[in-house]
This record gives sequence, structure tokens and C-alpha cells, in this order.
Amino acid sequence: MKDTAITQIAIIVDDIDKYAAAWAKVFKLETPKWFLTDGRDKAHTKYEGKDTDARAKLAFIQAKNITIELIEPVGEGSVWMEHLKKHGPSVHHIAMDAPDMRQTIAMLGLPVSQTGDYTGGCYAYLRGEKLLGVDIELLHDDVK
Amino acid sequence: MKDTAITQIAIIVDDIDKYAAAWAKVFKLETPKWFLTDGRDKAHTKYEGKDTDARAKLAFIQAKNITIELIEPVGEGSVWMEHLKKHGPSVHHIAMDAPDMRQTIAMLGLPVSQTGDYTGGCYAYLRGEKLLGVDIELLHDDVK
Repeated sequence: MKDTAITQIAIIVDDIDKYAAAWAKVFKLETPKWFLTDGRDKAHTKYEGKDTDARAKLAFIQAKNITIELIEPVGEGSVWMEHLKKHGPSVHHIAMDAPDMRQTIAMLGLPVSQTGDYTGGCYAYLRGEKLLGVDIELLHDDVK
Repeated sequence: MKDTAITQIAIIVDDIDKYAAAWAKVFKLETPKWFLTDGRDKAHTKYEGKDTDARAKLAFIQAKNITIELIEPVGEGSVWMEHLKKHGPSVHHIAMDAPDMRQTIAMLGLPVSQTGDYTGGCYAYLRGEKLLGVDIELLHDDVK
């Protein structure tokens, strides 16, 4: 863990425009722009092992040592929407790089809730909420 | 924000022994030891502006770029217990250094929910949950 960087803290929100504007106002930033994640054809999103059309709006705020990610779920069938319905707007996960994702998943031993691709990489969410108090995201950038 | 480090991610838990053991097991660490925060005479803890006897058990897990803090509330009258009762075990705040705490509080413009001292410094929790999706802790180490 001492050698592992936490790269992102992700907050699920119900209105990304509102939260992006609030972060900008409080911390005196330019309002971060959001983008919509790819559809199923490109992102290959799987939730609980099944293909899903769920997407999300994402916005990123760069701090010195970590990125804060705002996520607004779009559509049903994702851990994003699951979290929003269960908890309301709140921190959902912390992310770390996993150069060998399969090995890391096996080593950590947490259930995989959702996987997908993005331009340049792929991710897996692990269910850590009950055991650790927070879910874990593993990120693998192809370019690294 | 680009020049601001997020120094801690804090998770409120209901059983610090259980969660500390879980983090250790999942991430292959030695189980972090917890300690009890000081009582009111030393910590001068104020919750919503009033003195409180509330304390907490704290354990720290060091990642490469950030510290993960586990907090188990002890006694009534704290943001820790408030969060636990409202949300159950989950992420409560992210922390950042504030060399000039009064100025930072004024600049951010968020309500102060709790303040206190610890050996070597003091802290203030700001209510960010509704606006930002997470509370903010400001830390001021005397030694810095």
C-alpha cells in the first residue's frame, strides 16, 4: 500500500452541472467540463457480468496529488446508479492503477461489480463497501 | 486546487478493529493500530460551536500519495457520530492542509461543523456534503 498511489476519489452526483459549478465556486476554479462515457459498442460495459447500456457523465478536478472525479449516472444498470439510489450523492470509490488487472483482482479477492473500456484503457470496480467502507476501482492504461 | 494536496481520505466505521483488519487482509498489510483521540480538556472539541466530550478511535493506512483514515466515533455529539447514524460506514471527508485556517475557512465559505486540537496541530471540519458531495477537513500542523 505504501507503494500504491490512490489516483482518484470519485463522487457520485445527481446533477453534474450543479456539483461541477459548486466545486468551481468553492475552490475558485474554472468549472470543469463533463463528457459522456462511450456507449456499449465502444465501452463494452458489463454490470454484474451482463452487458449494459448504462453510461455516465464524468468531470475531473485536478488536485496536486490526486484527481477528484464527479460521476452522474445516465440510465439504469450500473454501480453508479446503484450507489446514487442507495446513498444519494456521496463518495463511491477510490481508484488505483493495476498494470496487471487480473492478478490484482485475484490478489485483492473482492467481487467485481462492473467493468468497461475507455479510450486508452479499461477499468474494473470492486465491491469494497461492506468490507472496507468504500468501493475500489482498478485502472489499466494501455499506454503505460 | 492544482497546488492543493488532498492529504487524507477518511472513512467513518462502526467497528475499527473489524475494518482495520479488513484493510490489512485485502491489501496485505500489517493491521494498523488505532488510538483514541484526546478528551475535551486536551482536544477542546467543539461540535456546532459547543464543547463536546465526543471522541473517536483513529487508524491510519499510508498509501503512496495519501493517507486513508479510519474513524470510529466514541460517544455522542460529533460529526463522526452524525455521519455514522445518517449514512452508516462510508467516506466522510477529504482533508487538506490550511496553513492559515481562518483565511481558508473564509475563502471556501462552507459552514464549520466541528473543530479540535491534537498533539501538534488543530483541525476544522467544513460541511461540504450537500454542495460538493463530501465534507472537507482543514488541517493545521503547528510544526510546519
